[in-house]
Amino acid sequence: MDDSLLQSLREALADDDLGGTADLLTRYAPQDVAATLERLGDPQQAVAFRLLEKGAALAVFEALDPAAQRELVEQLGEREVAQVFARLDPDDRVVLLDELPATVATSLMRSVPEDSRARTDVVLGYPKGSVGRRMTPDFVSVRPTDTLGAALERVRAGGAASETIYTIPVVEQGRRLVGVISLRSLLLPPGGDLVADHMVTPMFAYADEDAEEAARRCVERRVLAFPVLDREERLLGMLTIDDATRIVEAARDEDEARAGGAEPLRLPYLRTPVRQITRSRIVWLLVLGVSAVLTVNVLELFEATLEQRVALALFIPLLTGIGGNTGSQAATTVTRALAVGEARPRDVGRVAFKELRAGALLGSLLGVLGWAVASAFYDSGIGAVIGLTLLSVCTLSATVGGAMPLAAKAMGVDPAVFSTPFISTFCDATGLLIYFTIAQQVLGI
Amino acid sequence: MDDSLLQSLREALADDDLGGTADLLTRYAPQDVAATLERLGDPQQAVAFRLLEKGAALAVFEALDPAAQRELVEQLGEREVAQVFARLDPDDRVVLLDELPATVATSLMRSVPEDSRARTDVVLGYPKGSVGRRMTPDFVSVRPTDTLGAALERVRAGGAASETIYTIPVVEQGRRLVGVISLRSLLLPPGGDLVADHMVTPMFAYADEDAEEAARRCVERRVLAFPVLDREERLLGMLTIDDATRIVEAARDEDEARAGGAEPLRLPYLRTPVRQITRSRIVWLLVLGVSAVLTVNVLELFEATLEQRVALALFIPLLTGIGGNTGSQAATTVTRALAVGEARPRDVGRVAFKELRAGALLGSLLGVLGWAVASAFYDSGIGAVIGLTLLSVCTLSATVGGAMPLAAKAMGVDPAVFSTPFISTFCDATGLLIYFTIAQQVLGI
Repeated sequence: MDDSLLQSLREALADDDLGGTADLLTRYAPQDVAATLERLGDPQQAVAFRLLEKGAALAVFEALDPAAQRELVEQLGEREVAQVFARLDPDDRVVLLDELPATVATSLMRSVPEDSRARTDVVLGYPKGSVGRRMTPDFVSVRPTDTLGAALERVRAGGAASETIYTIPVVEQGRRLVGVISLRSLLLPPGGDLVADHMVTPMFAYADEDAEEAARRCVERRVLAFPVLDREERLLGMLTIDDATRIVEAARDEDEARAGGAEPLRLPYLRTPVRQITRSRIVWLLVLGVSAVLTVNVLELFEATLEQRVALALFIPLLTGIGGNTGSQAATTVTRALAVGEARPRDVGRVAFKELRAGALLGSLLGVLGWAVASAFYDSGIGAVIGLTLLSVCTLSATVGGAMPLAAKAMGVDPAVFSTPFISTFCDATGLLIYFTIAQQVLGI
Repeated sequence: MDDSLLQSLREALADDDLGGTADLLTRYAPQDVAATLERLGDPQQAVAFRLLEKGAALAVFEALDPAAQRELVEQLGEREVAQVFARLDPDDRVVLLDELPATVATSLMRSVPEDSRARTDVVLGYPKGSVGRRMTPDFVSVRPTDTLGAALERVRAGGAASETIYTIPVVEQGRRLVGVISLRSLLLPPGGDLVADHMVTPMFAYADEDAEEAARRCVERRVLAFPVLDREERLLGMLTIDDATRIVEAARDEDEARAGGAEPLRLPYLRTPVRQITRSRIVWLLVLGVSAVLTVNVLELFEATLEQRVALALFIPLLTGIGGNTGSQAATTVTRALAVGEARPRDVGRVAFKELRAGALLGSLLGVLGWAVASAFYDSGIGAVIGLTLLSVCTLSATVGGAMPLAAKAMGVDPAVFSTPFISTFCDATGLLIYFTIAQQVLGI
């Protein structure tokens, strides 16, 4: 199904069958058309977009990823862009504005009608990365004293201009939020019941809160929308599940890419130029490369020891590999716990102690194994060195790997960024220090 | 807000204020109560759960994660469990059944009323990991020839038993799906319009399809529910956004954990025992440790070379570190592209060629830098060896790192599992082979 629209679209466009293309596009939901356009790529994307009828064009545009929106804006004429732009929801407009060069953004804002511009300015007033910037200020609300029937009529009357009508905020005088009610609860119980009897206490976010955290809460609780308040507890707007999902997915993409030592790509992989892929990785490799010079320095300290027992060099990649992996296991687990709110920076002591024990347990298991194998194949001296090194390296790497993400977060740095290069270099360098120190003691060199 | 419920609940429970606790719980949405119970932990969790009134208890139970459901079931009495279990939605029941020991599952199924058991059996009939197993068979549908007003009445009449009413399937005779219509489109346009004029062509999934792929489609398109069909195109059920989000998040957790070399934890991090954390990591470390023996073997081949030029040992961790990182950068990017459908196993040629070029570009940059630095601090021979090794290692690691996830997928193995240990060992071992071969040639030893 997924591919059939893409294929039919490609065929219709290749045949210059514009009527057929337009017909095809009207039959699918805007999200599906948007996903298909993103995969169509450059010239055909704009052609297909132009064939959408006005209302559909808007819905499709809103469903595109910001990077794809930007691509499309670059291909369309100024007037076409202005037409779509003027009719976007204020929050979607702000996301696009953030994406575009400042001059284009300013000229586009001029095309927006007065009252809509005012609502966009509300959203623009919140800092990038805050919930306020991602909320929709277009919503319909009901009163706790409304009957369900009356409330439903309010939703019918005001719903067309509202981005979401499935979760409806219940407000008192002065826009004070007192609850939320689902459209389902408006519709299914007897119409004479009061809103107050079917509403629930809402989870909400303050507009200046971090968008990622609020979005994660929205997604995890599986609510369809989240009220956004100012610090005087007045209702400003709603964060919808689709925007929340976008925010969370974008954040996870970024974390995942950085955990793998790269910046996230903005376009689909196969359409991203090699140059851009290289650019997303080179900084990380340079940071790693430069800090890996530390391992060369550490080894230089022990060059004399190495000259006496060249066999010690054989185990270097094995030991640094296991140390680095133990560290990154701990870092991955703790970064995840941090992201979902299972651990906070103030838990650093508990986390470090937990990882210390886990690391020591892992190190004992691997150490005994390493000792046995190395004793069998080399000699008991080497066996003891390998066993003791594995025990120490695992304990240290797990503890540091677990504590690092929390320390990074406390310092206001993205844990995923900081952890990867730091932990691998740290584990390599300290692992080598430990290894050769133990070797000197045990082997007496 | 989030924490205030948890705190008030803890206080009320500590004071044995059961009335106050019950009162507190009724004021919040089930998802919020569920999230709070998950963080409350062992004995208090069950106490609080018992204080929920019947309908709320069911909704809260459904909102719990499967692992938390299992924990709770272990704490509650058999009769209490049977009561909740009998009233669960069939799809939620199946998720819990999969979680419980077989004997408990069988005895619980006996408590389920006849007709509901039949619908559970439909869901149970699909294999684990398929969409069929995660869909809800309880839905309300409308006809294309209904007026919007008549359709709305159908929804009102049948909606109470339906898990979702925001996306409504439109079916013809014989349960043949012809479209979907949103509740919004039922409610907002004039009631005399026909359903056929406001429905859209649906994206759907076949019940035997992979649940993760279908769920990802649902989440990415930001639709609230997805029809699930049998291969005769008859409507069987709906996959809802909340279940789809759970599936996608669980899959990402697993991928992330495995990319970091560990199995995902089932309980919140701080509540997971050290033993269990160790168990989630030890297998990976053993696999890595055993395969890292390969690096020892490779180095043994070059022991004589090392004895002649001990300085060569100094660069081992630096070179294996950069090689491993280049490989994991490529693997992370491609694994992600694969997960979101931006690349497929058949694209392996294009991906490998792209990574070959990216790797060669990265290798040239790092190689020149490495050559310059090593020439300055050591000698021009070592400089040439380091430069050439970096170029070759980066090119090879990126190509293999990019191709591996696709190869794994083609063989039916989870790309995230296979890539990490394979790539790091492969890059280490081949990197060392390349390094010493180049050294022997350039330095003539």
